[in-house]
Amino acid sequence: MFSEKVEHLIQALSLMPSVGKKTAQRLAIHLLQHDRAAATQIANAINAAVGSVGSCQRCRNLSEHPICHICRDSRRNDSLICVVEGPMDVIAIEQSTNFSGRYFVLMGHLSPLDGIGPNELGLDILEATLQSGQTQELILATNVNAEGDATAYYLAELARKYGVSTSRIAFGVPMGGELEYTDSYTLGHAFERRTQF
Amino acid sequence: MFSEKVEHLIQALSLMPSVGKKTAQRLAIHLLQHDRAAATQIANAINAAVGSVGSCQRCRNLSEHPICHICRDSRRNDSLICVVEGPMDVIAIEQSTNFSGRYFVLMGHLSPLDGIGPNELGLDILEATLQSGQTQELILATNVNAEGDATAYYLAELARKYGVSTSRIAFGVPMGGELEYTDSYTLGHAFERRTQF
Ligand SMILES: [Zn+2]
Ligand SMILES: [Zn+2]
Repeated sequence: MFSEKVEHLIQALSLMPSVGKKTAQRLAIHLLQHDRAAATQIANAINAAVGSVGSCQRCRNLSEHPICHICRDSRRNDSLICVVEGPMDVIAIEQSTNFSGRYFVLMGHLSPLDGIGPNELGLDILEATLQSGQTQELILATNVNAEGDATAYYLAELARKYGVSTSRIAFGVPMGGELEYTDSYTLGHAFERRTQF
Repeated sequence: MFSEKVEHLIQALSLMPSVGKKTAQRLAIHLLQHDRAAATQIANAINAAVGSVGSCQRCRNLSEHPICHICRDSRRNDSLICVVEGPMDVIAIEQSTNFSGRYFVLMGHLSPLDGIGPNELGLDILEATLQSGQTQELILATNVNAEGDATAYYLAELARKYGVSTSRIAFGVPMGGELEYTDSYTLGHAFERRTQF
């Protein structure tokens, strides 16, 4: 419909998650018609980030510094480590809780069929930290699904090896959730873990 | 929350229309965590398009060629010109109709308060075409709102000067539309333009 370079831009923008063809068309036309300065700023920011953002050597979160700002923050509690699957989980926990310990970001979960084992998740780094003896509690905040549970189980075994206690975020029927609309996996676990009333 | 370059990327992505902070975070993390090849492809496509896409000299639509592919297409009918406000309107008409004439893309509408007059919309180019005598009908497909109507009115006057007949896309209550939920501007016009039943 458009000239090649406009079509290329539309195709490239539609590589972004949840951006369909129609949205990509709107974005491309908007940027070219109304905001080329923004377009250039986006391209520059992408290139700058892709060129320099790697993984924090301590927690594996995305950072362009060898040690990220959370790991550098001396006010945070070294004896607590919260393990999460990805960077968005760090944001969610920072925004919803008053957790002031450290993080370890797996950048995924164990998935043997996809060739993702302990090494791919950087568990050697986590193991070295557990071995150092300064960790008192490992909080397992992987997702509450089959993969996240399996990963949490593996991590709990690892922690036990070094005498570090573990905890798993509570899961059950969400606040305000009606049983009728709760998925069976959640409801099954919530029923099993019922507490005295 | 994140390191500077990641935050810059999030800010840049949120310059896109209808991309809020949360969506921009998801996009940035996704690109950096899972798809750096796509990220680089997007940056390259933006730079290529911004660097070379301009306006077609004949119809003003976005194109990296001096004359766009629709204007170059010799199978299209030179005697019909459809005037639209923007590139997305060309897509909409190409997809919804069997129009096979030419387009003229205003890249906006008359808006004297914003300093957008006939020159800013390239109407000198359109006038030269009308003057050449090959145009039989100018189809006014600007938006159906106050600005689009005012622009259509101005274009109709221009066409009259050169003896070119004009038409305006029909407007009224949309197909399947209920009167109760139709905005008053539309309903007022639909009522006024009622036809014998
Ligand atoms: Zn870190
Ligand atoms: Zn053209």
